[in-house]
Order: sequence, then C-alpha cells, then structure tokens
Amino acid sequence: MKTADLQPHLDTLAPQFQQDLMEWLRIASISSDPSCMRQTSEAADWIANHLRRGGLEVQRIETQGHPLVFAQSPPIPGRPVVLVYGHYDVQPVEPLEQWISGPFEPTIRDGNIYARGATDDKGQVLTHVESLLTLIEAGVRLPIQVKFLIEGEEEVGSANLERLLPSLAKQLDCDVVVISDSSQYDVGQPAITYGLRGIATFELRLDGPRQDLHSGSFGGAVTNPAVALCQMLAAAIGRDGRVQIPGFYDGCRELTEIERRRLAELPYSDAEFARSIGVDALGGDQRYGALERRWTRPTFEINGLTSGHQGEGGKTIIPATASAKISCRLVPDQDPEKVVAAAEAFFHAQTPPGIRLHFKRGHAAPGMLSRLDSPYIAAAQRAIESAFGKQPVMIREGGSIPIVTRFQEVLGADCLLLGWGLSDDNAHSPNEKFCLADFHRGIAASAQLFMELGSLNHHRAGHG
Amino acid sequence: MKTADLQPHLDTLAPQFQQDLMEWLRIASISSDPSCMRQTSEAADWIANHLRRGGLEVQRIETQGHPLVFAQSPPIPGRPVVLVYGHYDVQPVEPLEQWISGPFEPTIRDGNIYARGATDDKGQVLTHVESLLTLIEAGVRLPIQVKFLIEGEEEVGSANLERLLPSLAKQLDCDVVVISDSSQYDVGQPAITYGLRGIATFELRLDGPRQDLHSGSFGGAVTNPAVALCQMLAAAIGRDGRVQIPGFYDGCRELTEIERRRLAELPYSDAEFARSIGVDALGGDQRYGALERRWTRPTFEINGLTSGHQGEGGKTIIPATASAKISCRLVPDQDPEKVVAAAEAFFHAQTPPGIRLHFKRGHAAPGMLSRLDSPYIAAAQRAIESAFGKQPVMIREGGSIPIVTRFQEVLGADCLLLGWGLSDDNAHSPNEKFCLADFHRGIAASAQLFMELGSLNHHRAGHG
Repeated sequence: MKTADLQPHLDTLAPQFQQDLMEWLRIASISSDPSCMRQTSEAADWIANHLRRGGLEVQRIETQGHPLVFAQSPPIPGRPVVLVYGHYDVQPVEPLEQWISGPFEPTIRDGNIYARGATDDKGQVLTHVESLLTLIEAGVRLPIQVKFLIEGEEEVGSANLERLLPSLAKQLDCDVVVISDSSQYDVGQPAITYGLRGIATFELRLDGPRQDLHSGSFGGAVTNPAVALCQMLAAAIGRDGRVQIPGFYDGCRELTEIERRRLAELPYSDAEFARSIGVDALGGDQRYGALERRWTRPTFEINGLTSGHQGEGGKTIIPATASAKISCRLVPDQDPEKVVAAAEAFFHAQTPPGIRLHFKRGHAAPGMLSRLDSPYIAAAQRAIESAFGKQPVMIREGGSIPIVTRFQEVLGADCLLLGWGLSDDNAHSPNEKFCLADFHRGIAASAQLFMELGSLNHHRAGHG
Repeated sequence: MKTADLQPHLDTLAPQFQQDLMEWLRIASISSDPSCMRQTSEAADWIANHLRRGGLEVQRIETQGHPLVFAQSPPIPGRPVVLVYGHYDVQPVEPLEQWISGPFEPTIRDGNIYARGATDDKGQVLTHVESLLTLIEAGVRLPIQVKFLIEGEEEVGSANLERLLPSLAKQLDCDVVVISDSSQYDVGQPAITYGLRGIATFELRLDGPRQDLHSGSFGGAVTNPAVALCQMLAAAIGRDGRVQIPGFYDGCRELTEIERRRLAELPYSDAEFARSIGVDALGGDQRYGALERRWTRPTFEINGLTSGHQGEGGKTIIPATASAKISCRLVPDQDPEKVVAAAEAFFHAQTPPGIRLHFKRGHAAPGMLSRLDSPYIAAAQRAIESAFGKQPVMIREGGSIPIVTRFQEVLGADCLLLGWGLSDDNAHSPNEKFCLADFHRGIAASAQLFMELGSLNHHRAGHG
C-alpha cells in the first residue's frame, strides 16, 4: 500500500487529527511544575485512551515521577518491530506575557498551530499515533509490530526512564526506534538525522586562600584562583579552537567521503548563520567547515564562570575560589570516560602551587551515528519523499539526546530521527508552533514508513 | 618637653581617655546604614564637642553626605602645621551573632577594648585628640599648629571629602598629614608606613552571540565569550606572575639599597604567611621576595569572573557574554592613566573575531612614597621610640588609600602613616578590638610627635 492509496482516508480524517491535537495541547502537562501534576497525569491518560481507540494493548507504567505510556500492536512474526518514542510533557511557559495566544489555548494562525507542546513533542509524536490508527481503521493489515513509549519527563532529563530502561528491555525489544522530536533542515527541506554528538560535563573548582583576601595587602604573593582558572582553561583550548588536552581527540571518527560530499551539498551560508546568531565572525577550528564543526567535531565549551565579586561595582579582593562549568561535545568513537579522565589529568597537571583543584564529574554519553546505508534509513527516505514531495537530506545534529544512545546500548536498536518541525518553531520559547501542513505530511510519512518497513525482515534485518 | 615630663599627666588622665573612647564607641555611626543617620551625626558632634573642650576653633562642615569635623589650634608663625586626618564613621556590624559583646557596648577583655570602631578609626584618631588636649591642659606652649579633619564617610569611599578637598585646600594647608588608621608591624613592633601602592580598576565585558546558545547545536562554530575571556586574561598575566601587557611596568620605581636592606631585616616567614592565609605555597613573581611583591611591585588581579550558568547543576550553553573585574595595584612612579590605557589597548588587540569587547574604566590613583630621610619621619621615629620603647620599623603597605595621594596632590603635604593597631584587630569583622596599652602609648607618641615637630621649620621645612 502506498500513501497515495491511503491519502483519501488521511484527507477525510485531517480535521479529526487537528481536533485530537488541539485537545491534547489544551492539557498543561508541564513536567517541572508541581502545580501541574494533575494535568501531566491527564496528558498521559489522554494519549493512552487515544491509543486504545485503535484496539492497541495499552499500559500506563508508573514511575517515581510521571508515568510512561506503553502501547503495542500485535506482533507480526518474521517482520520488524518499530518502537516510536516521544513525550507528552512540555516545557514551562514563562514569560507568559510574550505569548500572542495562551500557551494552552491552541490557536491556528497562518497555517501554524500555536501552543506549548505543538512541535515539542505532542504534535510530532501524535503523527505516528494517528498514522497507525488510520491504517488500522482503513483495514490495512499491519505488516510490522508497532510499539509506543511516550514518557512524561523528557523535559526534566528522563531520569526515571533511564533507570527503568534495563528492566523494560524485553518489553521494548525492537529493530528500530523512531523519534520525531527534531526539525527539518529548512522550510520545504525534510531531513533525516543520522548522527548525534555525545557529551561529557564536569566542573572545575579552584580553591586558593581560606577566604577572600584584600587585593592590596596580599596581592602579589598569593596565587589568585581566578587567574589560575583562566590560565588553566586557556591552556586547554588554543586560540585556533583546537583542544590541547592530550588524548582528547583519540578515536574521533572522520567523515566518510560520502558524508563530506553530502554535507558540502547542503544549502548553507556562514554569513547567514553568523547573522542569525548576532556575531560578525564565526569561531572554531578553521580546518573544518562550520557545519562540520557543529555536527562532526568535538568541542570544549565553558558554560559558566564564577569567581569573586558578582554584580555592580568593584570589590578589591583576591577571591578564595573560582569555578568553571564545562561541557564537551563528543563524536563517535570518542570514549566519554577517557575524555573526562584525560581532562581531569590535564587540569591536575596544570594546577599551580597554592591552588587545590576539585574536579567534579558530571554526566557523559557517547555520540551516535547510524549507518547511512541501513535499510531503515532507506525506508524512511522513501516514506518521507512520498509524503513531503522532496527527498530528505541526511544531516547530523550537534546536540546530544542521551536517551537515544541509551536505546542503542540497552535495546541494541538503530534510531531514526525524523524531525517534522522547523528550527524556528520556538520550542522552549514563547509562541511555540507547528506547521499544520507538516503535521499532516508527518502522518502520511509515518504511515508510509510503517508500510515500507514491512518489506524488511525481523531483527537486525539489514545488518547481515 | 619630653614624654617623660608629660607621662604623669597622661597616667592621671588614662581612665578619662578610656571613658572618652567608650562614650564615642557607644554611638553607632555606621555611615553606610541610612537607619544610623542620627547616630552618625551624633558621633560627629561628640568629637567636635570634645575638641572644643581644648579651646580649639571647631567647625562642622556639612557635605552632601555625613559632615566633616574640622578643628585647629592657633597658628605658630614659622613652625610647621600638622593636619591629623581620621574618621568617626564605622563599618557595618553583621554578622551580629558572632560578636561576643555588642558592637556598640564597648567591653574590656584581656587588655583590649572590644567595639566596632575601636581600632578603625575612633580609637586611633582619638589618640591625637587626647594628646593635644593633654598638652593644652598641662599648660604646655604648643610649638606647632595642629589641625584636625575627621570625616564620616571613609568607610563608604570619602567621595564628598574628595570632591570638597580643592575648595578646602587653604583651610587644610599644612606641612604634614598624620594618619593613624593602620597597624603596627607586629605585636610589640611599632612601624611607620612610608609607602602605599596605587590602584587602577577596570572591567572587561565580552559580548558574543545575541543570546545564550545551545552548546550542542552551535558549539564548534561560535567563539565562546567565556573561553575568549580566559584566553585574553591568561595572555595578560604569565604563569611566572609577570604581567604581559606592554608598558605595564613603565616607570616602576625599584627599591633603593637602604629599602632593600631594611625590608630584608624585617622578621618575616613565607611559610608562616602561607599558613596564615591557608595555602601551601605562595604565588607571584619569584624574582622578588614576598614582602617586596606585596608592598613594592605592581599587580594584576582578577577580582571577579562572571559568565553563563551560575549556581548548582549544569546548563549546556555557549554564554552570550562573559565579564571580569580587574584591579591593578601600582607603585611609584607608574602612571595610572597610562597603565589603564595600555590595558585597554592590549585587550582590544587580544579580542578575537566574533567577540565585541567593552572596556569600562574604574577609578585610579597613583602610589605614594614618602622620603625615608624626611625630618617628619625622623621626628615620628623618635616620638614612637620614646612612647613604645622600641624603634619603629619602616614599612610599606600594599593597599591604597586614595585620600592620602589626594592630600599629597592637593595640599602638597607629606603623609605620616602611624598605625597603632594590630593586624588581628578585626577591623571590618566581628569582635573588632584595640589594645588599650597601645591606645595609651599612641597618645604618648602623638604628644611627643607634636613636640618633636616643633623643632622643625614651617612649610616644606625639610625639603630644602
């Protein structure tokens, strides 16, 4: 069955899809807000009940926080199992006064639906639910088993899901995980994200004198922790943007020729990117192009610096302490543990006399890279092209989605990141939106994907 | 007249001196606290009335803030004029719960008087008032004219006095300014401070992207302002403690042989100093000894660093901005304006593409150095030796007292910094104290100084 055959059904149901989405969006499921406990639970129940309409087996899995919603269609022996992952929780809505229409009063303007959660992630995950329900209602014999895992704590770090994942491994067993929680490359240019960067975070705290000292009476004889911190961090990252920590780049996988060519073909302008973020020149290691640097090269970024006097005016002290928060983005096949260990050793070696370094490890996750030649990607390409009328470009993403690498590790499954959103959708900001045409194209692409995957074999089908 | 002749008078009056001090200390003259307005004014009136008891001409000079108290004895033609400068305002008293006895309930324990302002500066400036009143009461014919300028805003920056100084120049005209608002070198070792460091402060603010950016999606292609700040500051100050800004050291006056010898003779231990501030090693330019570095060499200190995420946890951003507060201590004959201009030029040259530097100048004041061979110093040495029973050591101080350099500039007068306090007097901290024996020795030394100065000639007497 092709989308073309399903299209009349989808067209007929389009108003209903929109109504469903608006209903879900009206529920203020802000996972970080204790006053939204009832609504967050209600949003879980809404999608659970919606999934039940298709006759799926649905389960509400309680956690120490917000519940998980799990659903599955019947298994199809010998055919692939797809797990759709998404989340029903949303970001806070402040500053409220900047919203044109209320964050939980979904409103359509210029072909977009405006509401908190429209693109992140209710609107996007719903495409897969609606597509499956439509296939079932249309009497199509499902060629694969589809599972859903829709959680309520993605916006607060997914800690409970991460904790439960090993115990859920059997239930979630699948060949491929499909996630729609990201963006197309540009307006009118769909994309498949086949790579993510990993992450390693840590903090440096440098302790010097017992307490802040008078910079006049003591200055000159005391190692200033803030000065030492600047010197140590400057030693870690060169003016050319290259990280100077020995071993930092160990294992970094270089781009393949195909990747390099595809990347070069993407419409992209340094000048436009610089303008969009408000700078007059880009930074980083100039041996690599800017997209390459953002997607495929590791980074060492200072996320925060704190020492001594904050706020207005002066205070002539030698601060007792200085600290920095660091996050490194990693690429396949850097080993996060080794990177952190290398950084720790480097900074200890760099610590001058008179300073005590406290190195505090944060979280770490490796980068993710799907095989460009995987049959799942090929199926997704066909599905997207048929629904969007344009071949998707293959992109990577500089950010990290720790749960994706956890899925890979625990479930041993490939991940397909199929973003239907746009980069200006204001996820996490006021006036979050989702293009309704993309919502409907997403449903069509999802339906087509489920059908396409039916032609593949079960379990690591294409990995032979 | 020698102190010996005056001593019986001083001994008789000692209980009265102590009572006077306690009375003054009971007045909560916290200049920074608007709720202490009445008490601050009352403290000014208390010392004004006290000075009137000696028959001095006393004037309360109103300012935009707290009043100045001015007093003078009759002029003695051909003899020096001494201006005693001090302050009647005190620091705040928080944390109150750490005081053993109330900050404004002066209490004597172990030979010390405990109260806010005991050493800083009511107890110290009162020594000169009591000595003059005693000389007058004893019927001694004053060999010099003594003027007093006692202000109420020293603890909040002396801005009003600085502003009024030029218009008061004639009234304050003098040969030498005497200030007792500092410390002896050690217990039982009095000192004369003959040099102060100057100061130059400024702030760097580095602006990068328009707003904080996601360190994953953007990291690698954007110059991180926090990284740039560390690199620029690390470029400014070498690992060897030497400032790398071209021109920074221009004009620095080196120690004379006499100074170097006297400095080397001072009892001092690096290990003990390190222990006292809680570090295991000292810092700074190792070509100079630690006391030399603290007193006689310029510094470049970071007083504060601020960028991106503060507080607990992580936030994976490229911060939009990063800033540093800097204070440099300067020595004679560095030119503060030139130092700041050199720093501004250096940091502009160091600013990488993609970053906009905002350089904000703060305040600046040159260092001060009295001639070791001045007749005023010789007189003070004799006076202190006679009252304390030990020859004072000649020391310099790493801090800056901008009003002292302003006195030198506006009045053209030498300054004698005669500290009767001790470094553990807890000025600015709970349980401020002043050793009563030093209070009485200070009165004796002051009386002796006034007599000694009578043997000198008026106006730049020793500068011929």
